[in-house]
Amino acid sequence: MKAEIISIGTELLLGQIVDTNSAYLAGELPALGVDLYYISQVGDNTGRIAEVLRRAWARSDLILTTGGLGPTDDDVTRDAVAQALGEEMRIVPELEEHLRQWFSRRTVAMPERNLKQATLVPSAQSLPNPVGTAPGWWVEKEGHIIAVMPGPPREMTRMWRNEVVPRLRERVTGEIILSRTLKTYGVGEGTVDEMVSPHSRSSNPTIGTYAKPDGVHLRLTAKAPTSEAARALIAPVEEKLREIFGDRIWGADDETLEGAVGDALRSRKLTLATMESCTGGLLASTITDMAGSSDYFKGGLVTYTNEAKIAYGVPAQLIEAHGAVSQPVAQAMAQAACRALGADVGVSVTGVAGPSSLEGKPPGTVFIGLAWGEKARAHDVSFPGQRAVVKRRATTAALFLLRRFLQQG
Amino acid sequence: MKAEIISIGTELLLGQIVDTNSAYLAGELPALGVDLYYISQVGDNTGRIAEVLRRAWARSDLILTTGGLGPTDDDVTRDAVAQALGEEMRIVPELEEHLRQWFSRRTVAMPERNLKQATLVPSAQSLPNPVGTAPGWWVEKEGHIIAVMPGPPREMTRMWRNEVVPRLRERVTGEIILSRTLKTYGVGEGTVDEMVSPHSRSSNPTIGTYAKPDGVHLRLTAKAPTSEAARALIAPVEEKLREIFGDRIWGADDETLEGAVGDALRSRKLTLATMESCTGGLLASTITDMAGSSDYFKGGLVTYTNEAKIAYGVPAQLIEAHGAVSQPVAQAMAQAACRALGADVGVSVTGVAGPSSLEGKPPGTVFIGLAWGEKARAHDVSFPGQRAVVKRRATTAALFLLRRFLQQG
Repeated sequence: MKAEIISIGTELLLGQIVDTNSAYLAGELPALGVDLYYISQVGDNTGRIAEVLRRAWARSDLILTTGGLGPTDDDVTRDAVAQALGEEMRIVPELEEHLRQWFSRRTVAMPERNLKQATLVPSAQSLPNPVGTAPGWWVEKEGHIIAVMPGPPREMTRMWRNEVVPRLRERVTGEIILSRTLKTYGVGEGTVDEMVSPHSRSSNPTIGTYAKPDGVHLRLTAKAPTSEAARALIAPVEEKLREIFGDRIWGADDETLEGAVGDALRSRKLTLATMESCTGGLLASTITDMAGSSDYFKGGLVTYTNEAKIAYGVPAQLIEAHGAVSQPVAQAMAQAACRALGADVGVSVTGVAGPSSLEGKPPGTVFIGLAWGEKARAHDVSFPGQRAVVKRRATTAALFLLRRFLQQG
Repeated sequence: MKAEIISIGTELLLGQIVDTNSAYLAGELPALGVDLYYISQVGDNTGRIAEVLRRAWARSDLILTTGGLGPTDDDVTRDAVAQALGEEMRIVPELEEHLRQWFSRRTVAMPERNLKQATLVPSAQSLPNPVGTAPGWWVEKEGHIIAVMPGPPREMTRMWRNEVVPRLRERVTGEIILSRTLKTYGVGEGTVDEMVSPHSRSSNPTIGTYAKPDGVHLRLTAKAPTSEAARALIAPVEEKLREIFGDRIWGADDETLEGAVGDALRSRKLTLATMESCTGGLLASTITDMAGSSDYFKGGLVTYTNEAKIAYGVPAQLIEAHGAVSQPVAQAMAQAACRALGADVGVSVTGVAGPSSLEGKPPGTVFIGLAWGEKARAHDVSFPGQRAVVKRRATTAALFLLRRFLQQG
């Protein structure tokens, strides 16, 4: 089945919003066995939308549209679909009733212009939208399908999963595509490519490498008649890659480093504290992005000055001897974090976020400290980059090294 | 001039990356007086790219493409442009020489496949790319323009600003569109709409309202022959809106709350410290996103437990009497942050990030504390939302209240 996505809204053409809906839907189609050849964005203009729809109709089996279903005058997607199909829109009493109830539950009178949200064309069925006033349309005609969905991502993704995907599953026959992502850290993209190369001629699954903020990802993509068959193709290749990369693979698919750290702490019943300078709180914030992190996270210190570092337990003579941005101070910060917050494990970051140098050290100089009982160490993880990149990469490095430290302990 | 954007790359159609290039270019065109009607994404396939180009040629004066200029076999944008134009590609000796120098400066031998990056068609000029190996193309033929740019955003935006925009400015005659964004906080979108309504019939500039993570934005958009004339149309309306919204407007255009807070502290020669629980370090991290924040930011405490709050100076009896998530504790936390870090001004956040309730208070319950010398206060800023949203909105609230506190002091 050949598909095409059309995102509708003048704000897309003014650059006021980025079209994340298309990327979401594009990522969903391979697992359904649907091939996507075109995506386009068009403004809120009936004629132009209808033109784009007619072209899509001529070359694609499935057309997914998002946006333009609101109640205001510029929401004309329904009109454009009707025009492209050469059909007449009419108000459907049950939909009108449903819409009036939606407003009355909110004790608001329904504006008359909302009535357009209760319309259908003869070849369309309505797709319910429990989280908004705009129902979608499911059009089936002459071997083509058009799924018309609202633009707000929360309403769109819900309608996609609950209404569109089940209908598509019934109609798609063919091979599905399944992906599995293995996440590495500490190896450059070029090196990953070389390490993978003995296996990279594999055509099913294919192996792709992608540089991401949390390291290089390996994506295995298999084509098979069923999900089970695709998983069976992926499993032996995944095993090979895990042998090659060892503990440089820290997770898969939706796993995050902060989640992996949380699991490692929780399973060992350990508590954690942080002391950070150049990351300015980003490390603690990332750790607390996990729901339930209060089970193991005692707290953190953002010591943006030398006085603060000393006040919370870093020996002044260490800073004098080596500078605040140094391996010995990183290690002392991790130990001080444990003591100051009564935690089992401490992790620290000290470095130069930039744009200026500090202590004669250039932006991107970063040290990570780790402490757990008697054990303590520090790593030099320096890298170039802009301020925001340095903060993000230093945080990632700290989480990766912390997880390995916990596993090796 | 009617424009169209074409983004090229199979990874866009697999949902592996979001097309931010199109949104960037779309945002640039109004100020040049160029109207954009269509954006589309197409995979790395010569025939399909050529088809999309031919259609764009038929309906648009200016075509902007990004992506598909790399050295590998799937980079076929040049071939597709040549096919659509019915022209022959040839290697240009000067471009080849330039490319070989690029590699020799990096003491790497040039792979032969990179030679395709030294090609042109007869109606194209080369657009230099000092930050990559792929030069762009500038095609002018039969009253149409095609600007072919590389996909990596850093290379694309540089080529756009330095090469494409100057050429376009010479050729575009017509009205330009200029926008000015005023940023409000603390007023819902509906209320903003009502407050604006006496002026919302203005057609030049138009006024749009947009709900954003840092508050509701008001965008004034004027059309005029020159930037000066557009600014003159916007100025009186901006003045009216500033009268209506008063200190609820905290900034304009690219300004951020953390920047506004930094300016307020710097101009008053004050230092700042934070103590936060539910935001888990995000407040400190956001403050330190500003380059130069070490001038005024002393540091922060992430007190994720009651013991940590007490250890850093929050009276235990206050927590016993009111709970850690309360107005009195928020105020005490701000005062404790000042003392603990020797800062002039303290700001605190205590609340329930969720997903579970705490002390019988539901997720989204948030208090912000402020302290400056003898002055101290706390605000209830509770709102519903998921964990990440609560963290982000609580941080925004703290920065807005801190800025107002500094201004009123």
